[in-house]
Amino acid sequence: MSKRFAIRPTAIAGALLVCATGALADPLPSWNDTDAKSRILAFVDTVTDPQSSDYVTPDARIATFDNDGTLWAEQPVYFQLFYAVEQVAEMAKTDPSILTTDARKAAANGDLKAVLTSGKEDLIDILALSHTGRSVEEFQADVAAWLDTSRHPKTGLRYDQMVYQPMLELLTFLRDQDFDTYIVSGGGIHFMRVFAEDVYGIPPEHVIGSSIVTTYDTSGATPTIQKQPELFFNDDKEGKPLAIDRHIGRRPIMAGGNSDGDFQMLEWSTSGDGARLGLYVHHTDADREWAYDREGHIGVLNRGLDEAEQRGWLVIDMANDWSTVFPTPAK
Amino acid sequence: MSKRFAIRPTAIAGALLVCATGALADPLPSWNDTDAKSRILAFVDTVTDPQSSDYVTPDARIATFDNDGTLWAEQPVYFQLFYAVEQVAEMAKTDPSILTTDARKAAANGDLKAVLTSGKEDLIDILALSHTGRSVEEFQADVAAWLDTSRHPKTGLRYDQMVYQPMLELLTFLRDQDFDTYIVSGGGIHFMRVFAEDVYGIPPEHVIGSSIVTTYDTSGATPTIQKQPELFFNDDKEGKPLAIDRHIGRRPIMAGGNSDGDFQMLEWSTSGDGARLGLYVHHTDADREWAYDREGHIGVLNRGLDEAEQRGWLVIDMANDWSTVFPTPAK
Repeated sequence: MSKRFAIRPTAIAGALLVCATGALADPLPSWNDTDAKSRILAFVDTVTDPQSSDYVTPDARIATFDNDGTLWAEQPVYFQLFYAVEQVAEMAKTDPSILTTDARKAAANGDLKAVLTSGKEDLIDILALSHTGRSVEEFQADVAAWLDTSRHPKTGLRYDQMVYQPMLELLTFLRDQDFDTYIVSGGGIHFMRVFAEDVYGIPPEHVIGSSIVTTYDTSGATPTIQKQPELFFNDDKEGKPLAIDRHIGRRPIMAGGNSDGDFQMLEWSTSGDGARLGLYVHHTDADREWAYDREGHIGVLNRGLDEAEQRGWLVIDMANDWSTVFPTPAK
Repeated sequence: MSKRFAIRPTAIAGALLVCATGALADPLPSWNDTDAKSRILAFVDTVTDPQSSDYVTPDARIATFDNDGTLWAEQPVYFQLFYAVEQVAEMAKTDPSILTTDARKAAANGDLKAVLTSGKEDLIDILALSHTGRSVEEFQADVAAWLDTSRHPKTGLRYDQMVYQPMLELLTFLRDQDFDTYIVSGGGIHFMRVFAEDVYGIPPEHVIGSSIVTTYDTSGATPTIQKQPELFFNDDKEGKPLAIDRHIGRRPIMAGGNSDGDFQMLEWSTSGDGARLGLYVHHTDADREWAYDREGHIGVLNRGLDEAEQRGWLVIDMANDWSTVFPTPAK
């Protein structure tokens, strides 16, 4: 049976003491001094204290996080979709003959709205055109070039600057406490690996995501791995615990997400024995980011909000719990 | 283009110097002082020496190894098949009603030969019966119990004692040199994880294998992951580089196998830039283990033997290069 993480007064006292005395620098400076921060510090204190009955050995300190809406923003559409549309435009520059459909033409014209309303078949075509028919290396070079040149339509920031500073601090803090941090996201596994190590400090082998079929091709001078237009695994909802089992083979003791697509990952992670921490990033900050939860086309959070309290999961109130949202860009 | 690993005189001199002066204990004591050992030592020296033009940073020191026939024995049949047959016998003890076919009855009677000649459909049925219809946790408890009680028909050893001592030393040596060691095997991913950490020092997240479809089940008091009778991924031949790409996301700089099922993994690993080492364990030792290569039903090695030399891959002659095959059992 699950033993949910309960706030132990001694652990909190310990965490507060560290802060109060300044014996150690605050590992989470972009988190306000609210209950959310206290619970995270208390949890980490509990599982890393060899004297604690909930002590967890370093090899079992696995923490998994969703990406879109949990580590970086996801509005007005998943950033990977911006890549898809802009990549079609880029491809059309050198080969206009690819513009065989209205949706492709809309993509080439940067008309995201028209692409989104073009229907499922056209959308799949845009995704296939932008994600397949080349090697993993070529695809990742395309994504890297897109990251370098594209800017978010609302903020004008690079997409990889729209990551959440408090979550970057949490990832670093966890690794400093001998956790292994993983991404477990519905986003594309090859797509995320392009920036996950630089931006999050998460190496390729700790990035788990959705994937398409690949093939091994020895027709050239050196072998390549080619991306094919067929879904291999959808890393969402029930897929997340299954992917965790397949890739990691251990149950996380901590998991974070922001939508009902993360529900099963939090459920799976927090139903193991001992102290566990499930957390939801709740998008409550229309001023600094976006405010959304139960309705919309992205990041819908219904069941999670309904059940978080009874399951002992932490709901992070972005507006209230975070003093900073995005990192200050260098210069 | 591939830059194959060439033996550099300075690297060998360095390695020999270490051995000759006894400045460090021999990391591979069960390897005879042959060319095979020298090449392995020279390769590791080259990629770990910051002064070397082929220096590789620790995060990119990825080494992948096949399991059956490379890290442990695989004769007269894959050990996982012994598990399957003996598990059916074990299940029949408590529920004889499962013995609905001749092949199942043969399994219950320990008649491996009859099972093997029963036909593909019956064999798949034996595998499904022994590997599915339960949770991952239940399956792994069954495998652990089998490992504890079963003995190899020829040697009388526990199956997890029929691992190759020289390869255990190689794995430890590589990890001591900041390599990440992975298993990439056609064997079942859940099956191998039961013993890989204890026996090889390889944790679950570094075990990649074949897998069947799993489902997430919340019908009980706590969620479980259930194993279903349908193949998800066959981690053999072309599947190996594809699985490496999916799980690790980096190209290994070293790969070891023993059959043509490992050919593509060695090809993929050694076709990257810089120093690379591909190695084959060649079963040449009928006295201490088994002697087989080009013919038979298991571990067939044809193309590998034909092309190893031109590709610069090391072929380990078990009879000549290894002073010990299996570890001496404790007590």
